[in-house]
Amino acid sequence: MSGLLSGIGVGPGDPDLITLKALKALRQAGVVAYPAPPEGESLARSIAAPHLTGGQEEIAIRMPLEPSRFPAAEVYDEAAATLGARLDAGLDVAVLCEGDPFVYGSFLYLFERLAQRHRVEVIPGVSSPMACAAALGLPLAARNDVLTVIPATLDDQRLTAQLANCDAAAIVKVGRHLEKVRRVLDNLGLLARAHYVERASMAAQRIMPLAEVEPPAPYFSMVIVHKRGAAWR
Amino acid sequence: MSGLLSGIGVGPGDPDLITLKALKALRQAGVVAYPAPPEGESLARSIAAPHLTGGQEEIAIRMPLEPSRFPAAEVYDEAAATLGARLDAGLDVAVLCEGDPFVYGSFLYLFERLAQRHRVEVIPGVSSPMACAAALGLPLAARNDVLTVIPATLDDQRLTAQLANCDAAAIVKVGRHLEKVRRVLDNLGLLARAHYVERASMAAQRIMPLAEVEPPAPYFSMVIVHKRGAAWR
Repeated sequence: MSGLLSGIGVGPGDPDLITLKALKALRQAGVVAYPAPPEGESLARSIAAPHLTGGQEEIAIRMPLEPSRFPAAEVYDEAAATLGARLDAGLDVAVLCEGDPFVYGSFLYLFERLAQRHRVEVIPGVSSPMACAAALGLPLAARNDVLTVIPATLDDQRLTAQLANCDAAAIVKVGRHLEKVRRVLDNLGLLARAHYVERASMAAQRIMPLAEVEPPAPYFSMVIVHKRGAAWR
Repeated sequence: MSGLLSGIGVGPGDPDLITLKALKALRQAGVVAYPAPPEGESLARSIAAPHLTGGQEEIAIRMPLEPSRFPAAEVYDEAAATLGARLDAGLDVAVLCEGDPFVYGSFLYLFERLAQRHRVEVIPGVSSPMACAAALGLPLAARNDVLTVIPATLDDQRLTAQLANCDAAAIVKVGRHLEKVRRVLDNLGLLARAHYVERASMAAQRIMPLAEVEPPAPYFSMVIVHKRGAAWR
């Protein structure tokens, strides 16, 4: 009997924001895999660390940092082969995913390689827009609001169009796009309603008006805007 | 010392999709409140039921069903007064919220009434779009995808504009708007990519191609579309 591949959302950062279901799947798996930088600690693993049993094989999927090497197909091909071999041997494999596995997660690339041949389950997790809104005390969507999750990587024109057509937005992957995001929001008259959150729910969480942020912003930063929501309090 | 008001996301339906943080706050509170229909059981309470201690005061906030009575300000005014009195008496109050408290939750209306005068924390939860995507095995957003959460209550023109301008969409509150949603998606050539999910993560979960759904759909139904994602498998 082939093993089960579980894509596990471990939540946005606080180890207590993992679900009971994720915890059970995590503890049951013989193999735990996670994305990691070329050297050093994996964020997904650090979130789940308090919950690891200690008796599991761990596999770090080390991703290159250079944008030129993305989408790093060879890294995922190799990881899929490694995990596939464990599944074929009857071991359950848990892949740890920051936030939710199906929202901008690298799990997608393993899923598309392994889901045809193996049993796969996905355990949803608390996604970072919700964690940012909770940290801000700012409702994301009410009644008939349209809520759009927008990558900051879009160009000025596409960012502007998306922001013009929603009621609330979570702008993700802000990082080095901070100045562009600020410029676009300012042009739309929305800068006073734009809230910046860095490392939501983690010990190092920082919250401030977007207007006051000094670049550079880290990759794990987000801007939340609600057009009818509170101006910065 | 005034009590703490916690808005607790209990997740989309499966009691195991509650977070450890929610569980701790839930068990610590002297008072547990939740939205409920005019008679009978509260969905939020039923999700959290396995985790209740039994020794807590429970307050059902009974909402009218008639759309003409919304937004039911008098119900929230009264509930806020009731919960405010408990907080003033030093009791911690946990408000149970389906999914995430700040995504289309009725918690918003308590929050806006109580947050000025009381200590409030919001514990984010797994939101239903993520639960639907997990149930479908269909990634919601990759790389630079724009993901839009769209209420089915919008008219044809606004629905069409939103769907035309995103990469992936979660259409919420489908219910009696099923035929309109289907017509709009069909006109956009997206019907074959539209997946219908009813009561995601609950025992009664149903999944099918949107094209095959027989109306009426319940309120807790959703349509997930990814323009480059899998056609119905």
